[in-house]
Amino acid sequence: MNDSVMMSEMCWPEYKRRIEEDDAIILLPVGAVEQHGYHLPLGTDWILATEMSRRAAERVGGIVAPPVMYAYKSQVRSGGGNHFCGTTSLDGNSLIQMVRDVLKEFGRHGARKIAVIDGHYENEFFLTEACDLAIRDLRYDGVTDMKILKMRYCEEITDETIEATYPNGYPGLSLEHGAVFETSMMLYCFPNLVDVDKISDDPPADFPPYDLYPANPDWVPPSGCLSPAHGSSAEIGKMLVDEFTDLVSRALEAEFRGVGEGKARKAS
Amino acid sequence: MNDSVMMSEMCWPEYKRRIEEDDAIILLPVGAVEQHGYHLPLGTDWILATEMSRRAAERVGGIVAPPVMYAYKSQVRSGGGNHFCGTTSLDGNSLIQMVRDVLKEFGRHGARKIAVIDGHYENEFFLTEACDLAIRDLRYDGVTDMKILKMRYCEEITDETIEATYPNGYPGLSLEHGAVFETSMMLYCFPNLVDVDKISDDPPADFPPYDLYPANPDWVPPSGCLSPAHGSSAEIGKMLVDEFTDLVSRALEAEFRGVGEGKARKAS
Amino acid sequence: MNDSVMMSEMCWPEYKRRIEEDDAIILLPVGAVEQHGYHLPLGTDWILATEMSRRAAERVGGIVAPPVMYAYKSQVRSGGGNHFCGTTSLDGNSLIQMVRDVLKEFGRHGARKIAVIDGHYENEFFLTEACDLAIRDLRYDGVTDMKILKMRYCEEITDETIEATYPNGYPGLSLEHGAVFETSMMLYCFPNLVDVDKISDDPPADFPPYDLYPANPDWVPPSGCLSPAHGSSAEIGKMLVDEFTDLVSRALEAEFRGVGEGKARKAS
Amino acid sequence: MNDSVMMSEMCWPEYKRRIEEDDAIILLPVGAVEQHGYHLPLGTDWILATEMSRRAAERVGGIVAPPVMYAYKSQVRSGGGNHFCGTTSLDGNSLIQMVRDVLKEFGRHGARKIAVIDGHYENEFFLTEACDLAIRDLRYDGVTDMKILKMRYCEEITDETIEATYPNGYPGLSLEHGAVFETSMMLYCFPNLVDVDKISDDPPADFPPYDLYPANPDWVPPSGCLSPAHGSSAEIGKMLVDEFTDLVSRALEAEFRGVGEGKARKAS
Amino acid sequence: MNDSVMMSEMCWPEYKRRIEEDDAIILLPVGAVEQHGYHLPLGTDWILATEMSRRAAERVGGIVAPPVMYAYKSQVRSGGGNHFCGTTSLDGNSLIQMVRDVLKEFGRHGARKIAVIDGHYENEFFLTEACDLAIRDLRYDGVTDMKILKMRYCEEITDETIEATYPNGYPGLSLEHGAVFETSMMLYCFPNLVDVDKISDDPPADFPPYDLYPANPDWVPPSGCLSPAHGSSAEIGKMLVDEFTDLVSRALEAEFRGVGEGKARKAS
Amino acid sequence: MNDSVMMSEMCWPEYKRRIEEDDAIILLPVGAVEQHGYHLPLGTDWILATEMSRRAAERVGGIVAPPVMYAYKSQVRSGGGNHFCGTTSLDGNSLIQMVRDVLKEFGRHGARKIAVIDGHYENEFFLTEACDLAIRDLRYDGVTDMKILKMRYCEEITDETIEATYPNGYPGLSLEHGAVFETSMMLYCFPNLVDVDKISDDPPADFPPYDLYPANPDWVPPSGCLSPAHGSSAEIGKMLVDEFTDLVSRALEAEFRGVGEGKARKAS
Repeated sequence: MNDSVMMSEMCWPEYKRRIEEDDAIILLPVGAVEQHGYHLPLGTDWILATEMSRRAAERVGGIVAPPVMYAYKSQVRSGGGNHFCGTTSLDGNSLIQMVRDVLKEFGRHGARKIAVIDGHYENEFFLTEACDLAIRDLRYDGVTDMKILKMRYCEEITDETIEATYPNGYPGLSLEHGAVFETSMMLYCFPNLVDVDKISDDPPADFPPYDLYPANPDWVPPSGCLSPAHGSSAEIGKMLVDEFTDLVSRALEAEFRGVGEGKARKAS
Repeated sequence: MNDSVMMSEMCWPEYKRRIEEDDAIILLPVGAVEQHGYHLPLGTDWILATEMSRRAAERVGGIVAPPVMYAYKSQVRSGGGNHFCGTTSLDGNSLIQMVRDVLKEFGRHGARKIAVIDGHYENEFFLTEACDLAIRDLRYDGVTDMKILKMRYCEEITDETIEATYPNGYPGLSLEHGAVFETSMMLYCFPNLVDVDKISDDPPADFPPYDLYPANPDWVPPSGCLSPAHGSSAEIGKMLVDEFTDLVSRALEAEFRGVGEGKARKAS
Repeated sequence: MNDSVMMSEMCWPEYKRRIEEDDAIILLPVGAVEQHGYHLPLGTDWILATEMSRRAAERVGGIVAPPVMYAYKSQVRSGGGNHFCGTTSLDGNSLIQMVRDVLKEFGRHGARKIAVIDGHYENEFFLTEACDLAIRDLRYDGVTDMKILKMRYCEEITDETIEATYPNGYPGLSLEHGAVFETSMMLYCFPNLVDVDKISDDPPADFPPYDLYPANPDWVPPSGCLSPAHGSSAEIGKMLVDEFTDLVSRALEAEFRGVGEGKARKAS
Repeated sequence: MNDSVMMSEMCWPEYKRRIEEDDAIILLPVGAVEQHGYHLPLGTDWILATEMSRRAAERVGGIVAPPVMYAYKSQVRSGGGNHFCGTTSLDGNSLIQMVRDVLKEFGRHGARKIAVIDGHYENEFFLTEACDLAIRDLRYDGVTDMKILKMRYCEEITDETIEATYPNGYPGLSLEHGAVFETSMMLYCFPNLVDVDKISDDPPADFPPYDLYPANPDWVPPSGCLSPAHGSSAEIGKMLVDEFTDLVSRALEAEFRGVGEGKARKAS
Repeated sequence: MNDSVMMSEMCWPEYKRRIEEDDAIILLPVGAVEQHGYHLPLGTDWILATEMSRRAAERVGGIVAPPVMYAYKSQVRSGGGNHFCGTTSLDGNSLIQMVRDVLKEFGRHGARKIAVIDGHYENEFFLTEACDLAIRDLRYDGVTDMKILKMRYCEEITDETIEATYPNGYPGLSLEHGAVFETSMMLYCFPNLVDVDKISDDPPADFPPYDLYPANPDWVPPSGCLSPAHGSSAEIGKMLVDEFTDLVSRALEAEFRGVGEGKARKAS
Repeated sequence: MNDSVMMSEMCWPEYKRRIEEDDAIILLPVGAVEQHGYHLPLGTDWILATEMSRRAAERVGGIVAPPVMYAYKSQVRSGGGNHFCGTTSLDGNSLIQMVRDVLKEFGRHGARKIAVIDGHYENEFFLTEACDLAIRDLRYDGVTDMKILKMRYCEEITDETIEATYPNGYPGLSLEHGAVFETSMMLYCFPNLVDVDKISDDPPADFPPYDLYPANPDWVPPSGCLSPAHGSSAEIGKMLVDEFTDLVSRALEAEFRGVGEGKARKAS
């Protein structure tokens, strides 16, 4: 029980000690319950966000809070859309309020260094609002030194990695849903949750430059993947996982530990 | 990936198939992130609610949705109070809205048999409201055959079990926070998350017949446990886990499978 | 006009004087508009909560604020369910916000000793949340010495009373809806509102260990009473009213007047 | 118990019978808990709204629901302002939601003829919104024949009455707070709640043509009354009560009973 | 760009400079998108509120913030009702929250002198609540010197003006919707937006003394105007615009500049 | 009055006629009140969104609704951050609710073809949620054929345009705040609102790959522009305005008029 970085596995005095004595950073993973094609599980987003948080936490002296699993509605052009069976989402304000509350509780615990690590594109602005409201409510309560860092674990991807992953051309991050990046990372970290035989042959999605409500399901490949996952491998997964662990860790170190260049940029 | 009852581990066509072809019951575990003394981890409530849901799901043909981990504020007289470091809770309305949204999504998926399995006393009425609002919103949308069963996994405890667990006198369920029941169940299911050496010698709490806001921390034993966990064992844990698995399974079978007596009562 | 403890009957300078000079405790009764069988009126819960508050206020130097009459939805297993005609309830969040606002206003008036006296089981956690939010908002406004006590007026019942009331066996508090306790208290305090000839012969309800949404009306006796009220009397009513007045008064005295043992327990 | 028009005093089968067999109109009184000078009690607004509803209900075949006592914030130019001690108000949205919920419940009971009878000027638009939202939610639920009438009990005052009440000149309805109208009505209906000796000699308020936030207390006479109540009498009270009972009753009869001219106007 | 009083046309340093150096008053116009008969455009309310704010701002040293265009639901007896095609309104709480947020932002900018200038009768109490909540939230943030003035631009109308405008008798302000006042002001300020040939011959509306939900469209003249606009002219418009500019300016000067009599009353 | 495409300038029968007879598309521009450096006005975002909507409306037969001016909080990495004086923003939920309400009103008017045209990056997901909730509420009301298209007016930019605009290298859309695109468009459409002499020499911003709450103002160039606007011209502005008018018009035509290829893509 003592060595885990997972908050759920700590007793409260240990959690308290790490905040007070070890100046631990709290990482809140945020994912989604969302279809990821025929070959990846519904939990892919929260599973990867939690895993990346865990790896960064071990490197920087962090505590991984229980992940926010249910999150914002999948959108057609970035996640296939919320009309899929299995995709299970919250209204925007429900997500805002839940995350706001959780962040405020960390503040009550005495933590002042928080990182929200997102693994689901659609969450971005609702997390922004949750952070903003938490900071505001804490300020009402006299807490003025809270600092919350928010990022996607894949906020930046190096050209080298893109080229190695997509030797025949990169479809763009917006179509990276259930595709080579996520599939490879799952193959590296949780191979038993991937069913490579079921990777779809659907061609990449080709979307018009707008959203439509209600969604038009005809826009989306039947599998729900926005570009093919063929070519995924644990090796690519390792490369991605290492790079993103680095990215997140350096951000935390720069901002919370005063280590590295002021802006936590990756060395180029 | 195929045999798991955990929704997060299924791909969406499998999830869909189980609802449509297997008439699967969806179980939504609800717990808390809450101090449980010096010897149990902060995740105890959601961990046990998920585990009990998993066991029942395997027996009745169910799917276990990702648990609601963050939940309602711990109260002094049932959970030690929300002033503890580590206890991480939501405002009531935040919890209501999150659970309402999730239940509605199950309805959109085509599921009509849902069970909310609670492992944290303070959640009860917020879950009630979430169920009521989900039923109402679904009705607005023309869905009138949704059925949601809600219970604590320990909604009933037999006298035999109480006597076996507490040979020297039962402090009552209200003081069962971080005590023999939860400790024994964790010892049986997740022994590596229990630190028996740290079980506190605090005497049982002795509360006045009212609540106070803000909470008076002096009312609560320093450990946060409301009665001592001494005497806990994996054997007692097995007895409890089996009994509660039975309790939940029979409720589901009676209500959703037409098996057993009309009201799913335990045989006495 | 001068001697009444009812806030609605005071002019504002008198109300102000009692708070500032007499250190008056404000009691906020909370009830419900809810069916209570064929023989008790729809207002039973708020009427009794107000009456018990009035009696305690007269003993401890209190002011009884106008009661919260409309409250949380009746549940099948504790109040017969919200499907009855006449039962008139609020959404959970509506109740939370209303009570929060009222409590904050008492704080603005300068009152620092508040008691929320509940007469309707289903309200409990929504009142908890209202108290918590009021304390928080007042804290944002620099008020840090507010103290709110919350209890049901029947939070504890002595064994002697139970035995005297139910010589043939106590069905349990959960089935005490429109039964001997409430009927007797109404017979003692407001006999003209009771129609003893209409007491139902329905047998006690026998519920499964879970809730169902939407409610199954077949679970509930036709009258809406969860156990028979036969045997009720004004004498029993007096005993109950006296005991509960004591219970509430002693809680207030212990917490707000420093009188009696630290925890305001009843002498055993 | 049988003859009362007060919903709180009826058992549920009687309430149901009146709606189904007698086509009863439900009247919901809405008032306030608000300072009314040195001589009138804090409950004046809800007490009078309830009394006027009761009188109209007896004339038209109505049921008086429990009053909404806590309501919208007193404004300086119409009620003296919310800064007074004793004035106890809700946020606008809290009031909207509470009244919306209550109106929807009447709809669930089968009632289709509802009247909201207001006795507190500041409530007007929040009641408007509550009615609008209730109608909308009921429509979502397939109820399309609900009809809600909303008015102040003094929505119109005849010139004859104004002249008889204010022989020396009428200050205008906006300054009628704790003045001759309310004082006289209370003297006629509830003389024991009026302390005529304490009627203030404050001159009428003289407000600029705008509101200010936060309120400037200097604008308001110390008593809180906006114009002097001297000259009040039970005789004037009777005249007003009779006129307003007529006004409300004729509105209900015209709209719900098809009696009288199409628009329920008072005969001139 | 430099001389405009319109906030939208200023760059941020100029806006900042005016608040800090010129002690500028910020005027927030609030209108509606609401039918105004056959001859006036849907934007009439926000257009006039903005124009009157602009004229006052030029006189008193103000900045006109972008207007709140969408606002509260038109009511039958004051604006014809919200059932008209083209009338586009917000729920009450949506309006409250939007205006509250905007007012708080002005506070964050350092502004302490704000005026909310309303041109739509139905907004009044929602603006009241928005002001109240903004003041409260700012207070939570330590800002205690914010001052918000709120008024309709036509809060007072002199008898001389009424007589000049309505030589044959004034129908009352409540029927002034799309009638002589608004038509004349539009003819003076924005003649190209008025189609005088389409002024309706509908007689004035004649309403009963109550509101009805859902609205009864038969109560309202087909055009949507509540009294005829015949007799409107740019000359009358000029008289009104000048008078209301005076009214607003003097209110601002008295309250924010210490100029004129304490209460900003018009000289009589 | 007759030829304008601006809703605010139409009388209601004309607005109704266009929807019913001309099958008009309603365009709702959404912008912001946000600093745009030393040389562009605070209204830039809503002004451009409205102008682009107007141009597209004239081409496709549309009606431009009054713009949503106040919108979501500026973020450091896309708009400089919400700490600037002059930037005036709403909470996320306030924006969601306002836009949801407005969209529902268009549905009530009978419109079934709506386009939300955004000019402020931070609004995206709150508009998504508003569209989703409006569709849901309309569905509750039996309206199932509403169709809402949502896009930024610059959702796609051709490589040719980028090269022509930024001959020395494109900083990326994320830094296009108050830079060459917006400045050039304003110079072309509203030259009197641009103060080219004040274009800042600040170098482009260089952000770390994460957000921080509260914002760190040191990350942002003093002017608030994220990349220099030097090189802006009305000629470039014309090119952009024409391209974006095309982009929006073709999207509307493809989706609502059945004209052009199925997905409204730009011809390549």
